[in-house]
Formats: sequence, structure tokens, C-alpha cells
Amino acid sequence: MKRLRIRETGILLGDLPAGLYNAITDVMGVKVGQTTLVSGDGPLQPGKGPVRTGVTVILPHPGDLFNEKVPAAVYTINGYGKATGFEQVRELGELEAPIALTNTLNVGLVLDAMLQAALRRNPEIGISTSTINILVGETNDSYLNDIQGRHVHAEHVWAALESARGGNVQEGAVGAGTGTSCFGWKGGIGSASRVLPLELGGYTLGALVQTNFGKRSELIISGVPMGEFLGDWQPQVGVEPGPGSVMVILATDAPLESRQLQRLCVRAAAGLARCGANFAHGSGDFVIAFSTGRRILRQPAALVGEQACILDEGKLLPGLFQAVMESVEEAVLNSLYMAEDMHGRDGHFMPALPVDEVMAKCGKIISAMCKNAREDKKPGK
Amino acid sequence: MKRLRIRETGILLGDLPAGLYNAITDVMGVKVGQTTLVSGDGPLQPGKGPVRTGVTVILPHPGDLFNEKVPAAVYTINGYGKATGFEQVRELGELEAPIALTNTLNVGLVLDAMLQAALRRNPEIGISTSTINILVGETNDSYLNDIQGRHVHAEHVWAALESARGGNVQEGAVGAGTGTSCFGWKGGIGSASRVLPLELGGYTLGALVQTNFGKRSELIISGVPMGEFLGDWQPQVGVEPGPGSVMVILATDAPLESRQLQRLCVRAAAGLARCGANFAHGSGDFVIAFSTGRRILRQPAALVGEQACILDEGKLLPGLFQAVMESVEEAVLNSLYMAEDMHGRDGHFMPALPVDEVMAKCGKIISAMCKNAREDKKPGK
Amino acid sequence: MKRLRIRETGILLGDLPAGLYNAITDVMGVKVGQTTLVSGDGPLQPGKGPVRTGVTVILPHPGDLFNEKVPAAVYTINGYGKATGFEQVRELGELEAPIALTNTLNVGLVLDAMLQAALRRNPEIGISTSTINILVGETNDSYLNDIQGRHVHAEHVWAALESARGGNVQEGAVGAGTGTSCFGWKGGIGSASRVLPLELGGYTLGALVQTNFGKRSELIISGVPMGEFLGDWQPQVGVEPGPGSVMVILATDAPLESRQLQRLCVRAAAGLARCGANFAHGSGDFVIAFSTGRRILRQPAALVGEQACILDEGKLLPGLFQAVMESVEEAVLNSLYMAEDMHGRDGHFMPALPVDEVMAKCGKIISAMCKNAREDKKPGK
Amino acid sequence: MKRLRIRETGILLGDLPAGLYNAITDVMGVKVGQTTLVSGDGPLQPGKGPVRTGVTVILPHPGDLFNEKVPAAVYTINGYGKATGFEQVRELGELEAPIALTNTLNVGLVLDAMLQAALRRNPEIGISTSTINILVGETNDSYLNDIQGRHVHAEHVWAALESARGGNVQEGAVGAGTGTSCFGWKGGIGSASRVLPLELGGYTLGALVQTNFGKRSELIISGVPMGEFLGDWQPQVGVEPGPGSVMVILATDAPLESRQLQRLCVRAAAGLARCGANFAHGSGDFVIAFSTGRRILRQPAALVGEQACILDEGKLLPGLFQAVMESVEEAVLNSLYMAEDMHGRDGHFMPALPVDEVMAKCGKIISAMCKNAREDKKPGK
Repeated sequence: MKRLRIRETGILLGDLPAGLYNAITDVMGVKVGQTTLVSGDGPLQPGKGPVRTGVTVILPHPGDLFNEKVPAAVYTINGYGKATGFEQVRELGELEAPIALTNTLNVGLVLDAMLQAALRRNPEIGISTSTINILVGETNDSYLNDIQGRHVHAEHVWAALESARGGNVQEGAVGAGTGTSCFGWKGGIGSASRVLPLELGGYTLGALVQTNFGKRSELIISGVPMGEFLGDWQPQVGVEPGPGSVMVILATDAPLESRQLQRLCVRAAAGLARCGANFAHGSGDFVIAFSTGRRILRQPAALVGEQACILDEGKLLPGLFQAVMESVEEAVLNSLYMAEDMHGRDGHFMPALPVDEVMAKCGKIISAMCKNAREDKKPGK
Repeated sequence: MKRLRIRETGILLGDLPAGLYNAITDVMGVKVGQTTLVSGDGPLQPGKGPVRTGVTVILPHPGDLFNEKVPAAVYTINGYGKATGFEQVRELGELEAPIALTNTLNVGLVLDAMLQAALRRNPEIGISTSTINILVGETNDSYLNDIQGRHVHAEHVWAALESARGGNVQEGAVGAGTGTSCFGWKGGIGSASRVLPLELGGYTLGALVQTNFGKRSELIISGVPMGEFLGDWQPQVGVEPGPGSVMVILATDAPLESRQLQRLCVRAAAGLARCGANFAHGSGDFVIAFSTGRRILRQPAALVGEQACILDEGKLLPGLFQAVMESVEEAVLNSLYMAEDMHGRDGHFMPALPVDEVMAKCGKIISAMCKNAREDKKPGK
Repeated sequence: MKRLRIRETGILLGDLPAGLYNAITDVMGVKVGQTTLVSGDGPLQPGKGPVRTGVTVILPHPGDLFNEKVPAAVYTINGYGKATGFEQVRELGELEAPIALTNTLNVGLVLDAMLQAALRRNPEIGISTSTINILVGETNDSYLNDIQGRHVHAEHVWAALESARGGNVQEGAVGAGTGTSCFGWKGGIGSASRVLPLELGGYTLGALVQTNFGKRSELIISGVPMGEFLGDWQPQVGVEPGPGSVMVILATDAPLESRQLQRLCVRAAAGLARCGANFAHGSGDFVIAFSTGRRILRQPAALVGEQACILDEGKLLPGLFQAVMESVEEAVLNSLYMAEDMHGRDGHFMPALPVDEVMAKCGKIISAMCKNAREDKKPGK
Repeated sequence: MKRLRIRETGILLGDLPAGLYNAITDVMGVKVGQTTLVSGDGPLQPGKGPVRTGVTVILPHPGDLFNEKVPAAVYTINGYGKATGFEQVRELGELEAPIALTNTLNVGLVLDAMLQAALRRNPEIGISTSTINILVGETNDSYLNDIQGRHVHAEHVWAALESARGGNVQEGAVGAGTGTSCFGWKGGIGSASRVLPLELGGYTLGALVQTNFGKRSELIISGVPMGEFLGDWQPQVGVEPGPGSVMVILATDAPLESRQLQRLCVRAAAGLARCGANFAHGSGDFVIAFSTGRRILRQPAALVGEQACILDEGKLLPGLFQAVMESVEEAVLNSLYMAEDMHGRDGHFMPALPVDEVMAKCGKIISAMCKNAREDKKPGK
């Protein structure tokens, strides 16, 4: 049965309208590419399979990112993770390569593959110019996947880069989310976006998440503690997956500088908390944000130039903060709503969120909770 | 009519049991003292009144804190605030003076008053020994209070210090919370605590908050978006207060080091988010945590000594994280539940949260939401 | 005998030319004001005297700083200190009030006095607009001064503000440096500046320091470990002062944003290290930087506007980094070269750096060391 | 001609005695392993050669590091670099794998090779237990090396791990320092150590550096600006190498916690500055510190246990700070003193520091500068 995004089931989150695709790609120029690897079955044979993993790449703009960088920021909510490339973003406040997401043990190989792709595009790197900083994020999909196998190879990364496009973003058990779990259900990739009103510039903010965190009892949907309602609904998974992690990618076309982008990142934590995230001890919870609204040229024409850069920060940022919280909350839930059942190694099974059961048990409460404030909102795109 | 803490109205938050007083003072040795200043009425006369403000002090232990310090950490969620003393805590990971909370423009005078109190207790400070680091937190109570007047004087600070005691903590419109607002209702001081099970050492975690943030539409009680239900219930306040802020103080008897305490602080953000906090642009949202379970002596007997300090961090901290989230959520709501109506300068009025209306409109939903998971929980002590 | 700045004795530091005044005031619009308090003698009477202290204020521009803020950054090398106002600068990247420097225990009262001055200038603060963030830095002058007395009163702060002007900056035992020590000699206030070549925009970078750190054996002048040469030259001070601290203020007219200013701050540490600073355990070593080259308006005319803000960061910042290192090194040495003998409480005595002895013992080495590279440099203005 | 360490040429740096090997391996249990790759000549053929690179690994102790971790800290002076694994160290304050150093573009492959080695040792990783965090540092050796070739393969990493041992550390153009430059001369790997006096516990502090920073004019040896003396001595290199970077590894057997180790890291910056480092824009300057004096067990026997952990921080850390500064300064200079001439790609040539010339030109000055304070110090072990 076709799975629906949460918005398509009639549950609207937040107050701001979503963008056309309700995805990070609503930010003009942003592309997403994914490679999904599913093969093998049965007992784990470390290094061989079964394989339930993949890679997801996010391209801030379609041009030569190494020479036309974008402002960026990183933020670590809980640093129990292996994301790379953060130090240079903190120092220079810029992104010069696409972002890649994958599984925890594949970070080294994906980093090298991304580098190879960059060398092909900009063969001057490390010869006549500086080297390149690449961000790779990860979560641990070892509950379903042979994570020791590091099955994401260079060609899978390159395929993801080549297939990257705007428009609809594949969600659920795809790309870097192929083998992940979220709140005891099948998680994966999710996305959402929000558009600010014209008096706030009409800017767009999009989020993409790789979800792999939370226990079943913790899930909150639109304020309703679903985990408690659904707790006894379905056979539990045999062995509980580890504490997981979450990667959040934020994009906006508002012309923010790095410090302002970092302020957006902080609000992603509030969006996660609204779904029930609690930043568990073993959860690597990281946020990366970039702006397509400014360009940082490797070779500027002048020592100092003018650009849109004075913001009414006290007016614009509150709107973007709200957009971040709503987008992140909805992106996490989309990753659950869109993911299908997945069997993995050693008979491990991660069931899809039972959406019908959610509506049967809690539809009334959810609508009761939403009625007053949200009766006039239509399931827009 | 006597106001009740949220737990007394039958709404239980979280899974862990509260301590005896359900307050930060459940951590053995912690004392709280407060001075409440309410005087004058009518139009604002800057420097004169009306006065709706105060000071709240938290003492980690009853001994000589300057010579027997405790491990501590600070964490800034949104740094739009004027808290003092943070740099030294970051460097040395310790607290050597009581913490004071007050209004934004009173920080300098309260800092000086706290210093005077310290000089009286330890007259060697700055003469034969080092100086002393004092943490003062604040929120902006200018909606009701003549904040320019800096009406908290040294004697008010000293009175708070002298009156400090364990046991029940006064909540609502008292001390540093006398003039603050939260989610468009009267906020103030709130507290709560949680006790870990014996297999997690039976440690206690307590929180005290000074609440001054949020818009009415944002309030969440036990997952229910109350603001939306209550939105039209009562005449709105004429002029909306500014963005506000929140100070969170965490205490525990678990023998944590500074880095571990800081990890607790991060989880306070999740507790705040569960009440609807969104870390607004203009909100100074700060967390301070300390442990009474270790002592850092100014003059240790040995260069290196032994102390309880190896933790099974992966086992103990998750329990404490949960205790932080639950305590902070409940402390915020206690600040609302316990605060009474307050009139202030220029006819500004901040109504108490209409608790009966909350139960009338949402009691069913709240109990529906809590039924499954919480039916077997009794309103604890 | 009139004391000379280090440059006037023929010792040139670094490669870049100094500005007209070789002071922070070479950055157009920057003003410095100081109040020096020297009174009493004999044994310490805590709260009475002797008094050897003061206050120094730095004004980024002569206008209404609260409504026309400047980009700013802070940086903590060693956080054993009580500087205030840092959190908000980290969050918003801006300065909205003059910076004040004083002694450690006077921070609260100076903060309050600065606030009163701000309220007088902008009576809307905290009533119809937000509150104000004020940075106060400090070092510990208790070796000479009755620090418990907190002798810097509001009128002293206001006098410093009123007397603030551009041009030459008083150095040595003045203002906040009246009672401080540096490398076992009398320290205090020092300043210096550098001007970038035209191809780097001709920007100016100025530093002002409040020096109160280091042991006699650690002093380095132009690479020469003077402490070792001078070690036995003069009766030691009876009781060694505590570990001290240093405050560094950097100003530039280059249109930097906060993140870039913070990168400048980091290089101040290198300038300090060149004089022998080692960031001792008990030393509160803080850096504050601001740019006069951009304005951040409280009420911008537009949501987003254009301003000089694209920098060729890889070209401009290296020049500014060098300017920071050279200015800070020279400012520290100026604080020593310009300070005169000071007697203080309890017969404590802090001798001026014996400059003639420096030249007698080390002049040859210094010139040997400088000859090759510096023979063509003239003692600039 | 055999090259000598700086100490062997009669130049003593600092006041503390060195350890037996004057190397990081003086910290009991620490091992260093290196693989040096030198092959090919002539024009650069990207992906083929010439090869001038390698890998250096540092093992904190000879046991099962994954199950017996050590306290650790990281510190970024200038974040223009690609070091991995920092986020988790910041969060958990521990090291659970050996540290590897290599060239900038080889980070991904070396990370993967280190991971493979860890999986072989602890095959439970990612299956029945958590994943593993690995720190890989880097500098850019592209002036001599075909950096695009990523010539450090898994077997080279494993060979370095297998060959790791205590005792003397190979210095100069070896391992990760094979192709690096420092102050316009051939740099590479350097090491040094210091031993605290018994009243400070007799602890050892060792440093290992991978040097790749600085311009010729900036080099300082024992306070003497050598660059200026040597500036015209020898044909300049044709094309100046890029801005470079430096990695500093600190080890100690003092039982420090993570926060205290981070305080050590900050002082490495002072040690670097004493050699002339200025933390250039394009220089990735990172410090990693660990303590062998405590163990953090993956599976502690108890929830809370006792361990040496109360430090007289104000007494012990100053000694360690000094040890850090002296060790880092000497380690950097050892990397220069021990490195031999190296020819690389495209005829690029990086000459060894002309040590005889240094002594001929500056020996007198150096001894003049050292005479007073150091006459009684013998070239220690």
C-alpha cells in the first residue's frame, strides 16, 4: 500500500505554509541524490551482508561549489558521532563541497569517494590551489545492515551525485536512511520545507533528516505521545537497536552569514524535541545549515565588495527559527510515514509506523488538538 | 483560591518519581532563598516604580563554598542575555559562590551584593587568596516592573541569602520571578525533581527555573497545545511583553565532573521544548548545573587524591538526562500553575494561568493522552 | 625622568608601520577615557585603602552605539576571570555599549555605572525597547590596591566616559592599569596600532591592553629573554603578586563580521606569547574585538540591505593577523615602558621596568638581532 | 652528515628536564609507529607520483584501547583543516583508538584503514557493541608530494601500527612528515618531553608534532629570529609552499580529566608561538591531548567507582603548562633539526635547516641569550 507523507494524512504541523515540494529542494538550486543498497538476507556475515545501507548527497547549488562557496554553519547537539569536516566550517563559515550522509563505518570511504569526485571536477585541488573540505555525516544502521562491510563504494557515491536533482525527494528507507530506525519503527530520510510570508522576504527554509534515534515509547506526533498509545500494538522487535543518531541538514535562500546560520541550527533541536527526541547519550545529533542567498568566491573580484548582508536579524530570524522547527519536526515524521517495513541481518525486523493504527487510535485526539487552531488550514503542498 | 502545583491537579509528567519536595532542594544540602519586592502602582516612573521584582539565590551546600567548591557547568542555548560568571565555570568547571537570579538591569548591583556577602564570609578574598567568581542570571521583567530602577538592593540579596533553606520552594510570582511572564501568563519561579532507581544509584536531580519566555499560542501542557485551546478564552494583554528568557538551574548529588554536567545542561533544552519553548531570538536561555556529590577543595590535602569519579557514563547519564527533561518540564509548568495574577506598571496585567479552564477544556484530552501509559502512576509525594 | 614608549627607544617590533598615534585611537572614531585613583598609603585597611585602581573605557564610535551597533567578537584564552557580557556577543556578534575595564571586584559596580550612563543616553532602554549588553573586563590589582574597597564609583566611570577622546592614549599606571603588574614590573595600560598597505585596503588595526600577568623570568623583549638578564638586577618584590590576567581590546576599520573578528582575537594570543605570556592557570586572558567598518542598526531601513561585506578573507585576514600580533606585542611592552614605580598597600612596591638597564645589558643583542632585518626601518611616528 | 636534535647542538630550551628519550614515548606505554613513502621523481603525474608522504600513528597504551579508553581532549587553534573524530572527543572526553596523522587528501583512506585495524582487533564493533571513534589528523604535503594520489594505503597504515614501539622516535622527513615543510625548511615529525619535579608528582609530559607551517622569515630559535639572519643565506625555494598546518599530540601520565587536558592543549599554542608560529589563515592548527593516568572502561565494574581524580589543579597544572610549552617548542625545532633535504614533484626542493650556518651566524647571540640563566644546565638526556 502506498505510504503517504504526514501532511497527506491530514495532520498539519505548525503554522507556516510548506513549499511546492515540501522538501529541502524548495530552496532554489538545492539538489538531492541517493543510492540505496539492499541485498542479501539471513545471518550476518561480517564484510559480506546482508546489506541495508546507502548514501544521500545534498548539493547546495548546481555550480562549481569549490569556487563559489556558500555560507554555512555546523552545530553539535550531542557529539557521539563521527561526522567529518566540522572544524573548517566553524573557522571559515563556508561549504565548498556537497554534503554526504551514510552509515557510521562508511565515513572514510565515502569521504574519499567525495574527494575523488571533487578532484575530477576541480583537478587543480591540492596542486595549484588549496585542498577541499568535505562534510560527511552518518548514523548507525547496524541493526539491519552489515555495517562492518562498508558496502557504500565510490561508484555508489558517484551515482548519488550524478542522480542528484531538485523536486520531490525520495523519503523513507532510501539512501543513507535505508537501514536506520526511528522511535522503534523504520526511519530513514525525511524532508520538509516552509515559506516565510512576503513581509519576511518570502524566503524558503528546507530541512532534510537522516533519522535513527529514539525509543518507541518516546514518539510524539503533533503533540500526542503516540508511543504510549501504540506501545502494545505490535510485536516488539527482538533486540532493541542501539541509541542511534540524527543528522539534520538545513538550507535557506535567506542571505545569512555563518553565525546566523548557526542560530538556525540551534532551533533544529527544538524541532527534534517536539517529535520526542531527547538527545540520548549514544546519539550523535548534528545539524548543518547553509545559505544559497550569498556566494563566497574563492577568487573575489575585489578585496571588499558589497552584497546583501545587512539583515534585520530581530525580524527575519524569528521567522526562520519557526520555519526550522516546523520543517525539522515534519521531516522527521515524514521519514517515519514514508518508510516501509524492512527485514535485515539475523532476522532483525523494523516495521513501518502503523499509520492506520495511529489514526484509529489517536485520530480523534489529534483532530481535537488541532481543531481550534488549524481548522482553516488545508493540506497544502 | 489556593493554587496547586501541576502534579496536584492530577497531571503527571514523565516516568520517574519526584523527590520528597519535588524541588531542587531534594538534592541534599541545596538551599533556596528569595526576596520578593512588590510596591507601588500606576504609571511607570523610571527609577521609582512600580516595583515588581526580586532575587532568588541557590546555595549548593551549607558549608564554605569558597573553600569547598562543587563541580559545575554552564550552557548557553540562546545567548541573548547578561548572565555573569560563565567564563570561569567553563575554564575551571567549578562553582565557588551561591547562584543569584534577578532582573536584567539589576545584575551589576546583585553581583556586587553577592560579592559583599562573600567578602564577609571569607575576608581573605582578594587579599591573601584569589578573588571569587559569582554567577548571576537574569530575565527581563520590564513588562510589569520599573526595571530601570534596579530596585533589588544589597540588603534584599542578603536577606535572600539569610533566609535560604531546604524543603519546599516558594513558586510563582516570587523572588526573581516576581515580575516575569511565561507563555503570555504570569510566570516566575518553578521547581521540580526526580529520583533515579536504585540500580542507577538512587541519585536525585532537581531543577529550578526562572521563566519569562514564550507566546500564549505556544504553551504545551503534557503534550497538549493549550495555547490554541485557551487562545480566545480571556482578554489578551494589551501590549505583548518582549521575548523574555529563561534561567535553568540543575542540581544533582550524582558525583559528576564538569563535562558530564554540561551534558545534563543540553537536555534541559529538550525539557523546555516540551513546554513549547522555541529559544526565541531575543530570549536569553541559559542553564547552570552543579553536583553536590564531589568537592573541589581550595587547599587539597594532596596533589592527587582519590574520589568517586569513575562513572558508568553510558548507564548513569541516560537516567539523569531523563530526570533533567522531566524536572525542567515540570518546573516550568509549576511556575505557571503557582503564579497568581499580577498587575504592574502602566496598567500592565499578567493573568495567572486559568487552571480550571485548562482542565475544563482539555482535561479529557489530557487524560486520554495519559491513560494508557500512566494509569498506574499515583500522584507522588 | 620621562618614560618613553618602546618604539621611542629605538626598538621596532614587527614589519608593519604604526598609525599616527600608534594607538587604538588610530582607528577612526575610537575614543579612550580613563580615571585613575591613587590615594592613601600604609597598611591595608580593607574597604578604606590604600587605593591604586581605576577604570578605562573604550568607545567604538562617537555616535549612539545602542542604536548603531558594531560587529564584535570575544575570545577566551584562559577563562579564569570575571569579564561580563560575553554570552550576548557570541550570540549576536555585536557591541552596543562602550567597553569598560577595571579591577576584579569592581565589576558589578562598574557594570551598574555603565548601565546608568546608557540609561541616561537612551532612556527608552528596558521600557519601550530591549535591555542593553555591557562588556566589563578586569584584572586583579590587589597587590597594590585595596581591592575589597571597590573604589571605582559611578562618578569615576562617568568621568572616564566624559573624558574619552581620540589621539594619544595615556599609558602605564593609569585607569584600569593603575595598580596592575606585568612580568614582575609595573604594568598597566598600553596601546599600539598597525596600518595595512594600500593593496590590503589600508585598514588600521589598533590594540589596547590592560596588563597584569607574567613572572619576571618570563619577559621577552623583541625576542630577547630579558627576565633572565634582569633577574638579579634589582631587589625582588617581597611577596610575589598572584597570577594576574590580561585584557586585550582590538579595533579595526576593516568591515569584518563577527566570525572574522574572532579569528583576529585568536592571533592576539600569539602576540601575547611573543612577550612571554604563557596563559597561566590563574590568569584570566580575554580578547574583545570590534569593527568600525560596518554598522548594525537597531532599526534597519530594510529587511535585507547591502553593505561592504564580501571580503577576500584569504588575502585581507593574513594582513590583519600580522597587525594584531604586532600591535598586541607592542601594546604590552608599551604598558611596561610607560609605567612608573608604584608603591601600594602594606609596603608593596612594583618597580618600573628599568629601561636603561635593559639597553645597557641587552642593547647590543637586541640590535644584533634586529640589524639585518630592520636596519632600514626608522623609528616611525 | 648525521643530523642532531637541537638539544644535542647545545641549545637547551626551557627549564624543565627532558625525559629519557626526550620524546612522547617517555610517557609510559605510549608507542609511535611510522611508514615513510618516498618514490618517483620528476614532473607531477597526479595519481602516480612522485610520492613523498606517509603516516604516523600514536598509541596511548599497549592494551585494548577500545575497551580501556583514556581521557582526552581536542583543541582547534585555527580550524582550516580536515582532522576527524573531534566531535566525539568533545562530548565524551575520551580516546578509544590510536591517533593517525597523514596528508590532507589521504584522511578518508587512512580513517578507513584504521577502522579495519580496529575491527580486526575488536570484531564486536558495530555488531554487538557501539561503533568506534578514530582521530585522523593531517597536513598538506602537496609541495613535494602527489597529494591527489592518496598513496597511503591500508597496508601502510597497518605497517605503522604494527611497527609502533616506545623509545626513540624517528624525526624529520618521516611518516606523516615525509613531505611537509616548516618555516621554509624541511619539516616533518618532531618530539620532545619534560618531567615534572617530584613535588609535582614527577609526571611526564610528551609532545609529538607534524610540522608544516610558517614562512622562512618567521622562524625563531631560542628567541632569536633566525629567519632574518638566514634570509639571504641560500637560494629560495622557487614557489612558496602554501600556508601549511600543524598537528600537535600531547601525552601525559598525570591523571587528568578531559577539561584539564584541554587546558593543556591551549598552552601548546604558546609553545608554537615561541617558534614563530602565527596561526596563519590557511593553517589547520590542531591539538590533541590524552592522559594515560586514568582508564575509562567500556564496561565498568560499578556504576560509580573511585580513582585518582582530585587534583590540586592550581598546583599541578602550571607545571604541566610549562612542560607543554617547552615540549612543543622543542618538538617543532627537532622536526627541523632532524629533517634532511628533500626533492619532490616538479623539481620542488625543500632544504634542510642549515644548522651549521645557524650556529655560525647566531651561536654567539644564542649563547649570550642563554648564558645567564642556563649556564648550569647540562645537555640532559
